Amino acid sequence: MTPTVPTVLVLDADPPPRLGRLTGRARIVHTDAAHLAERLPAADVLLVWDFTSHAVRGAWPGDGPRPRWVHAASAGVDHLMCPELAASDTVVTNARGVFDQPVAEYVAALVLAVAKDLPRTLEYQRERTWRHRETRRVAGTRACVVGSGPVGRATVRALKALGVTTALVGRVPRTGVHGPDDLDRLVSRADWVIAAAPLTERTYRMFDARRFGVMQPSAFFVNVGRGDLVDEEALARALARRWIAGAALDVFAAEPLPADSALWELPGLIVSPHMSGDTIGRRDELGAQFVEFYERWAAGRALPNVVDKARGYVPGH
Amino acid sequence: MTPTVPTVLVLDADPPPRLGRLTGRARIVHTDAAHLAERLPAADVLLVWDFTSHAVRGAWPGDGPRPRWVHAASAGVDHLMCPELAASDTVVTNARGVFDQPVAEYVAALVLAVAKDLPRTLEYQRERTWRHRETRRVAGTRACVVGSGPVGRATVRALKALGVTTALVGRVPRTGVHGPDDLDRLVSRADWVIAAAPLTERTYRMFDARRFGVMQPSAFFVNVGRGDLVDEEALARALARRWIAGAALDVFAAEPLPADSALWELPGLIVSPHMSGDTIGRRDELGAQFVEFYERWAAGRALPNVVDKARGYVPGH
Repeated sequence: MTPTVPTVLVLDADPPPRLGRLTGRARIVHTDAAHLAERLPAADVLLVWDFTSHAVRGAWPGDGPRPRWVHAASAGVDHLMCPELAASDTVVTNARGVFDQPVAEYVAALVLAVAKDLPRTLEYQRERTWRHRETRRVAGTRACVVGSGPVGRATVRALKALGVTTALVGRVPRTGVHGPDDLDRLVSRADWVIAAAPLTERTYRMFDARRFGVMQPSAFFVNVGRGDLVDEEALARALARRWIAGAALDVFAAEPLPADSALWELPGLIVSPHMSGDTIGRRDELGAQFVEFYERWAAGRALPNVVDKARGYVPGH
Repeated sequence: MTPTVPTVLVLDADPPPRLGRLTGRARIVHTDAAHLAERLPAADVLLVWDFTSHAVRGAWPGDGPRPRWVHAASAGVDHLMCPELAASDTVVTNARGVFDQPVAEYVAALVLAVAKDLPRTLEYQRERTWRHRETRRVAGTRACVVGSGPVGRATVRALKALGVTTALVGRVPRTGVHGPDDLDRLVSRADWVIAAAPLTERTYRMFDARRFGVMQPSAFFVNVGRGDLVDEEALARALARRWIAGAALDVFAAEPLPADSALWELPGLIVSPHMSGDTIGRRDELGAQFVEFYERWAAGRALPNVVDKARGYVPGH
């Protein structure tokens, strides 16, 4: 007689790596979004591997049988949270830890590339034009990083290592972290404003016309958090009116960014396809992380990275 | 009766900043290249402000009356050194110290931008194409920095701060610096090979076909030293044959790079117009540095940054 093994439902067409290690200890069932609702009630665990999918919200079974644990292979959980899931006793965990350093490096890359005018250098090269310019020194500039989770903290470390003076802003002021009351003051003095916050009711469109209005005309804005942290129309106007010098968005209200979006050609805006945290090998890391968490869960031990479902993120230090 | 003040001949059409501070203590005479030879014999000091000019070599008066001190407002002095100047008792100094941190930041910008595939992101943006890629983590990669002067050492510090494992190669092995014997071994293991050496007889075209041949196919080569450190045709072939993954040249054998040069459109090559060290404000810094040196010289004190004219650079620590 075979002992019953828990069923792990994986939301993704492609099989995640490393799950073979759970052979005999878990029954792995793959599903696409269309079949999620019918398969959720029989699952013990849901692994949301496809971080672009919003299917969980529509398919969550409410009061009926449901997974006891949902793991998101992403830093944000906004794409799967819904009131029924928040109200349930199902535990939600995320991939906190896998993306911190990659996103921090990505932000550092943008800051340095902009300071050194690299995008324009590439333009001049296409035109075979030799045009010498003086560029900015990064050491001694000021950054305001909004979002005091692991990504924001890693970003602060990376920028500090380059000699940038940094200020970190979080929901709750504490040692080394400013509270929301300091935000406008810090943003108004920053050369670099970095959005790295989770998307919650409090952070929805926190970067709006008023906030772009208090930034310096020389300021550069970067969003590596979630698209809805930003009022995209307000950002477009701020760039057009030169309230700020430039911006880089890696995340958007609608992803993929539609081909007819005006953002693609907005002067001063760098558009990238939600890839700041996605380094080569991270699929392996995400798979290995889930396997490790599963082994704890199956052994009845406490799960790491448990999301505060009311807040929408893992409460930090 | 007015006491005689020394004559400072400035090779540049534009007046350098800060020299007004020497009013009454120096007679400042500007010259272009065409009039340099006739004015040199009467000058006590030559300030080579135009770092692109090779005019000093042709105009140097040999055994005749000549400046007792030549200051180059640049890190390299290859553009002004000639056998007659080397053999004379004229002291040559350079702008060591002004460019170190800016060049180091520029190298860090290139390394991060390439690791994060930023040039391709900008291409896709122009095509309104959303194409997610996985990119490289910089922390944990290996760099070999060739040139153990202040620029090379600052570059090592900047890359180390990003978590890169670095090796520094100089002419003479010493603590923290590998000698030339280790060069091929280090280059063959490096993800990033950075040329930051002065141009001397020993370093002329040190990056040739053989040396590109020992690099990894994934290696990226950066030259922020002098164009003639590199055999440009060999680099073009190495890129075309994928011996290495890519390169960035900020300096060239011929500058400005001619509009018909094949280098402009070489796949995998980033071309920039000799600007890595030129941050906003550096003209002020260079002017202030000369004023400081002049005050020491006029007081009969020892000059800093004295170039070893046989070697072609300031011997270091």
